[in-house]
Amino acid sequence: MNFTYNGKALTPTNHLENLRIVLVRTRNPLNVGAAARAMSNFGAFHLRLVTPYEKAFREAVSAVGAGPLLGKAEELQSVDDAVGDCGLVVGTTAIGHRELQHDVYSLEDAAKKMRKKLASGRVAILFGSEKTGLSNHDLSHCHFLLRIPTRIEHRSMNLAQAVAIVLYELSRGSIKIAARSKLAAAAADMEAVNRINLALLEALHASGYIHPRSAATAEEKLRRMLRRFELSAADAEVFLGMIRKIMWKMKSEK
Amino acid sequence: MNFTYNGKALTPTNHLENLRIVLVRTRNPLNVGAAARAMSNFGAFHLRLVTPYEKAFREAVSAVGAGPLLGKAEELQSVDDAVGDCGLVVGTTAIGHRELQHDVYSLEDAAKKMRKKLASGRVAILFGSEKTGLSNHDLSHCHFLLRIPTRIEHRSMNLAQAVAIVLYELSRGSIKIAARSKLAAAAADMEAVNRINLALLEALHASGYIHPRSAATAEEKLRRMLRRFELSAADAEVFLGMIRKIMWKMKSEK
Repeated sequence: MNFTYNGKALTPTNHLENLRIVLVRTRNPLNVGAAARAMSNFGAFHLRLVTPYEKAFREAVSAVGAGPLLGKAEELQSVDDAVGDCGLVVGTTAIGHRELQHDVYSLEDAAKKMRKKLASGRVAILFGSEKTGLSNHDLSHCHFLLRIPTRIEHRSMNLAQAVAIVLYELSRGSIKIAARSKLAAAAADMEAVNRINLALLEALHASGYIHPRSAATAEEKLRRMLRRFELSAADAEVFLGMIRKIMWKMKSEK
Repeated sequence: MNFTYNGKALTPTNHLENLRIVLVRTRNPLNVGAAARAMSNFGAFHLRLVTPYEKAFREAVSAVGAGPLLGKAEELQSVDDAVGDCGLVVGTTAIGHRELQHDVYSLEDAAKKMRKKLASGRVAILFGSEKTGLSNHDLSHCHFLLRIPTRIEHRSMNLAQAVAIVLYELSRGSIKIAARSKLAAAAADMEAVNRINLALLEALHASGYIHPRSAATAEEKLRRMLRRFELSAADAEVFLGMIRKIMWKMKSEK
């Protein structure tokens, strides 16, 4: 399914194409906007709102980049309507499991289950209102519940932050980042490192930093330290230039 | 270190005791409050603010449960001051790595590195302003950068959501949730399942649902289906009662 808005194509990452984020009786329009922005960040484009508290949420809300997604949001009169076409319905809760009649999984475990289902059918995740969460009636639609592992003393998260974290966990591994690490930058070869080593040694001897009696130990320490720097080829050249310049100055001042 | 506010003890989860969340030139007081709430959710209690745009953020901000943490937040005049006592400084960015002079890791990889450091020393994570992110000067303090894996087309996240996701990932595995799964509830024994099987078979035969010619296949299918239900002992009893009641009604209406 291609998803467009105002003629502009959105490119959903396929893994969340079957996901429906359902906000139930949300009170604060800012939260709807912030949740929509997080959805867009992670490529989940299908938002459903069950009787949002503020009817005028579409006008009231502005969140960076969330416009297209909000324009397509569906407004529904009941949770029944919002999850009718979904094969798996998951509720979110901050409450401990003792009070609940459902299985409760950590977000990590719940995400594993949901990812499996998302490969073949629709999955709805319900988020309750800021004040009261999901009602027992809402929960009766759920196959199981998920909880984000927060501190027992302060469990309840901001609604949009909870949406963002759930989507982050669901996307885990799906969006690749081309990491650039030191391994990727051309490393200085050992010859270059040795030139630095020799130049530094000369400077340290000349300055009296290294005492002749303990020279051997000092030289070993220096060599190990230079290895730990993991210098890039470019940095090695700059570093060597610095040391040579310092040496030149020391000699010329004698 | 014990952390108290207004005489009330907070119980930090130790794993984030060495973490400093540094918000640099944050413009929106709501974002400061929301970030503080997420910090409290995940047990990261040390917030540092570098020249926040709104001087009056302490008065302007209210976020559920974030008060104690905000009351202890430190206000600093420069990034230098904010990271001076930290052994590892990590910047956050939404920008691709081509424009950057630093190593960039995905949040997952960055969190692994940070967790190692947190065990023995202080770690600072810098979050830039909503409009411009971190400046080149800010970045020059960083050992490496992290990026939350968002869509290329909509990379930039809400500040407080980014803080929440970073803390969620850093806390991964540290806050245990006592999951209650079907395995924990006493499962129905096979005798109970077989009683249901027999009662249902009787009802299905009586109702004409099962045709004598295909009875064997139908019975197999039913048996497999009942196994998939993974009934709890309590549910099995209720279910059996329902079927027996239906049978009784069918018989009495003949």
